Amino acid sequence: MIVGVIGGGQLARMMVPPAVELGIGIRVLAEVEGSSAAIAATVVGDYRDAATVLAFARGVDVVTFDHEHVPQAVLAALVEAGHAVHPGPDALAVAQDKLVMRERLGAIGAPVPDWAAVHDAAGLRAFLADHGGRAVVKTPRGGYDGKGVRVVRDAADAEDWFAAGGPLLVEELVDFRRELAQLVARRPSGQVRAWPLVETVQRDGVCAEVFAPAPQAGGLPAEAAALAGLIATELGVTGVLAVELFEDADGRLLVNELAMRPHNTGHWTIDGAVTSQFEQHLRAVLDLPLGDPSPTAPWSVMVNVLGGPAGATMPDRYRAALADRPEVKFHSYGKQPRPGRKVGHVTATGTELDDTVARARAAAGFFQD
Amino acid sequence: MIVGVIGGGQLARMMVPPAVELGIGIRVLAEVEGSSAAIAATVVGDYRDAATVLAFARGVDVVTFDHEHVPQAVLAALVEAGHAVHPGPDALAVAQDKLVMRERLGAIGAPVPDWAAVHDAAGLRAFLADHGGRAVVKTPRGGYDGKGVRVVRDAADAEDWFAAGGPLLVEELVDFRRELAQLVARRPSGQVRAWPLVETVQRDGVCAEVFAPAPQAGGLPAEAAALAGLIATELGVTGVLAVELFEDADGRLLVNELAMRPHNTGHWTIDGAVTSQFEQHLRAVLDLPLGDPSPTAPWSVMVNVLGGPAGATMPDRYRAALADRPEVKFHSYGKQPRPGRKVGHVTATGTELDDTVARARAAAGFFQD
Repeated sequence: MIVGVIGGGQLARMMVPPAVELGIGIRVLAEVEGSSAAIAATVVGDYRDAATVLAFARGVDVVTFDHEHVPQAVLAALVEAGHAVHPGPDALAVAQDKLVMRERLGAIGAPVPDWAAVHDAAGLRAFLADHGGRAVVKTPRGGYDGKGVRVVRDAADAEDWFAAGGPLLVEELVDFRRELAQLVARRPSGQVRAWPLVETVQRDGVCAEVFAPAPQAGGLPAEAAALAGLIATELGVTGVLAVELFEDADGRLLVNELAMRPHNTGHWTIDGAVTSQFEQHLRAVLDLPLGDPSPTAPWSVMVNVLGGPAGATMPDRYRAALADRPEVKFHSYGKQPRPGRKVGHVTATGTELDDTVARARAAAGFFQD
Repeated sequence: MIVGVIGGGQLARMMVPPAVELGIGIRVLAEVEGSSAAIAATVVGDYRDAATVLAFARGVDVVTFDHEHVPQAVLAALVEAGHAVHPGPDALAVAQDKLVMRERLGAIGAPVPDWAAVHDAAGLRAFLADHGGRAVVKTPRGGYDGKGVRVVRDAADAEDWFAAGGPLLVEELVDFRRELAQLVARRPSGQVRAWPLVETVQRDGVCAEVFAPAPQAGGLPAEAAALAGLIATELGVTGVLAVELFEDADGRLLVNELAMRPHNTGHWTIDGAVTSQFEQHLRAVLDLPLGDPSPTAPWSVMVNVLGGPAGATMPDRYRAALADRPEVKFHSYGKQPRPGRKVGHVTATGTELDDTVARARAAAGFFQD
């Protein structure tokens, strides 16, 4: 059993440990030499080039992804050549275009913010007029970690994007209490397993902290798990599906974004769940029976490590962090630190939420300036 | 930070996941192509050849081991060339020769079975006469997993080994209640951390099952941790030290064997401890602060998977096992199954020992004939 992963980022990297433990071969098509997933990178090449991707696929049993950016033409060529591709092109088409995503979510009855496809300033102006003069504009393609997302109060705020051509997605600016995320995994043969609903804290459009399970969530976990299961099944998602959610001012769930791969809001599962999202993704794309997604501790808290340390060298900080927090799990992605770049994360587990949060933040604090 | 591991077996393989998580580079000098640790194997060569080992060591920050068989001359060449080697040659010398081990353990006051170095049949006959006509004879070098160990009732039973030359180790046949193992890790700068004492079940000289922590152990855990700490410190062991113990009929501990590397009796720590023996070994040999060795569940039970499946194919068995036991953790070493060969292990965790044992055995049972 060999899984081929297109993309050499930290998500591919974090698939390596469970592949090694399960005895699953893993090969990565990386963009560059020295990628985060370099230990498993057998090819360095362009994932937009069908010949490169087809050659890579020949040696593996299933093709999966570190990101959702492989062009549909390349995906079609893989399927045409008889390769198993999970998630498949139809599901990925939904993740690749936020307008398609909104349409499909609406069609299956998933709750979403008010939205529209706008083609010009007049359209955006009309939407703003109907929504209290504020809205979120998103480029349908290519955005991530807050890129391609902008809060606007005037049609002029999106002028450059309109000038670049194509319609934009405009959405109501949801007055949310908090952000949540529901992750599930689905096998091609249909089995779905859900992790606990988690609360996520975003800073500058980037996931900063995750609390698992989401505190004081009442009936939301059951609702979120059902919703994510519905989406995975209706859209035919295989592997891990992350559903980013708003809990609005009235306590209702609204779907914000979808990701069809392991997701930052699921990193806590490496240390806090019986089956991590990375192990589950491998099982799912190989259509192996899914593992138990139950948490192993009452609370798990993940804090991202961003950007580059300035004051001290990375090894010095690392040494100090390990010494101070022997019980916290440290994850480093083997990437050169740059401001704002995700270079690692830490996870603390515990029996009291406040204490667990404090320990995770303290551990991550060693890498901040 | 790059760790170089000499030997490409499953112990080197299982160092890969924590290396990836911690952001530590790992390179393996493997004996053969397609080794268990192939994903990290950057060199295939003979660990008995100093030039091969020196060339391998040039690219790493510390040299450590998957086994204890690297010749002292090669170790000396590494140290001479300025490489960090953990565990070091002096410590490894004790692990490499069971007569030296017995002498050193005796010198530091560690409790050991009655023993003697015997050079001929007459010497063995005398020892047998003093010990009820039964004894254990061991070849001082090269034994593992029951190889090089023989229960004898007559000097003739060891005739072939005497004929091969050199003294043999003879020990009293301990009337033990059970076998235990105490693992600790030690940094070059002196920090020592101990995992819980575990009970081990051996079959045909091979570790079959491990129960963590050792049930109904009274004061033995504290005694065993102190003993292993003493041995690690006095012998200057760096990295993981495994102390295999007998609990004799009077409830006393006796040291059976030492291993200076991660050990089969510590595999449960991957899934049942905050810091696994493989992560701790990497931290220790790099002289990084050690992690918390506390268990994450009341009970962990590991069962080895041996030999080759005959009736069904491995993937079919694997699929059935995963389906039946979604909460058990499966570890496959990527090795061709041969009768009696360790090809993987499973670990179950739980709140009741009986149930945890039953689930681990059920999971492993899918791979037996």
